[in-house]
Amino acid sequence: MKRIKMTIAYDGTRYSGWQIQPNAATVEGVLTDALSSLLHEPVALIGASRTDAGVHALGNVAVFDTEHPIPAEKISYAVNAYLPEDIRVVESRQVAGDFHPRYDCHSKCYEYHITCGEFAMPMERLYAHHLRKKPDVARMQAAAVYVEGSHDFTSFCQTGTPVRDKVRTIYSLTVCDREQEIVIRVVGNGFLYNMVRIIAGTLIQVGLGEKNPEDIPAIIEAMDRQKAGHTAPAKGLRLCYIRYED
Amino acid sequence: MKRIKMTIAYDGTRYSGWQIQPNAATVEGVLTDALSSLLHEPVALIGASRTDAGVHALGNVAVFDTEHPIPAEKISYAVNAYLPEDIRVVESRQVAGDFHPRYDCHSKCYEYHITCGEFAMPMERLYAHHLRKKPDVARMQAAAVYVEGSHDFTSFCQTGTPVRDKVRTIYSLTVCDREQEIVIRVVGNGFLYNMVRIIAGTLIQVGLGEKNPEDIPAIIEAMDRQKAGHTAPAKGLRLCYIRYED
Repeated sequence: MKRIKMTIAYDGTRYSGWQIQPNAATVEGVLTDALSSLLHEPVALIGASRTDAGVHALGNVAVFDTEHPIPAEKISYAVNAYLPEDIRVVESRQVAGDFHPRYDCHSKCYEYHITCGEFAMPMERLYAHHLRKKPDVARMQAAAVYVEGSHDFTSFCQTGTPVRDKVRTIYSLTVCDREQEIVIRVVGNGFLYNMVRIIAGTLIQVGLGEKNPEDIPAIIEAMDRQKAGHTAPAKGLRLCYIRYED
Repeated sequence: MKRIKMTIAYDGTRYSGWQIQPNAATVEGVLTDALSSLLHEPVALIGASRTDAGVHALGNVAVFDTEHPIPAEKISYAVNAYLPEDIRVVESRQVAGDFHPRYDCHSKCYEYHITCGEFAMPMERLYAHHLRKKPDVARMQAAAVYVEGSHDFTSFCQTGTPVRDKVRTIYSLTVCDREQEIVIRVVGNGFLYNMVRIIAGTLIQVGLGEKNPEDIPAIIEAMDRQKAGHTAPAKGLRLCYIRYED
């Protein structure tokens, strides 16, 4: 039995998220069907990140086990022929049989894209959150500094999430000003449900003057979802990469 | 009677090009219907550039005449409510009654986007031409120099185009290397049918070693469409802006 690790890119627009579910098009569902068609055997994926509906990925990761003789590196080329153009397996290779894409993850990187201007430009409408008024990036950057580090991120986690330990470490949280576009880039050892979108929504509110950068420590300490900002829309979010110890 | 000039952005993916035609969704058709609904009167557009099916625009231009009392600057805001999200009127203003978006055009800028890599990334699949092998950008740049200037561009015009004078001036043709992406940017006083796509296709073939940069002068002089390269796919092309004397 071989364990195959795949790196997967997708445009999340058409999908009800990663996780397989009945009566809905999901990335995991479409990919499972494509692999089963290719290998002529049932395939069970273990994904690294269950992205939500409308969230995009440049490098999500999933594994599956197979005894099929196809060389591991060839699987990406072969399965892409069975996939729609909005999902691509960009790499496939064999890993140790006990490799686990969630538990062995070393760090993850997400970006949240915001476009600013009077109107949302058509070519960016599906890949960025549009704001008519541009937030103050210096204020967002000042707030971001407080979010970096190890904290209990209960305030930045959707309520009802059945995870006990809500301590996560954010290695870096940067806010990049590209004139008509703002890109929030966050690297951490793990993320709670909706955590990046709540961080993005909170930074946006700081940038618009609805909250202050100095409010962030108290928001974290409160361990109360109500204290943080809105959950920013899914389409602005993209999972960039997942790193593993090699 | 007022003449209204609109600047229009669109994602061309869903449309059979700019020009209105029966039984097909076109940008001009959808925009005409939206303006007619807004103003409660028939509207006849004069467009600056009849982009092909799948070609995108950040700033195409069109005018129409109306006696409606709505302030010209308000039309963009109002008509966008009647438009799908893949078409936006990004500016509207009154111009002189004899302003003509084609004849008064001073310069136009197009970009042709190429992505390179083993697989076409899903989020770029509709907005760039994908090549597995990356062309040599230095060779493309060397070829581009020969294309700049005033020439009879018959070799770079789709055959059968009923235009007599095929002399056009290209003010600048640059090839920008962004690692995984190559952007060809061209500014000129006017373009023949498919001219930018044929220039792009020819530069790509030069970059891939199928033609040489020094071949370009002879290709131009031949005044023969057969001598130039392929017509590159529509989706890589975007009309960036159209300039007018002010």
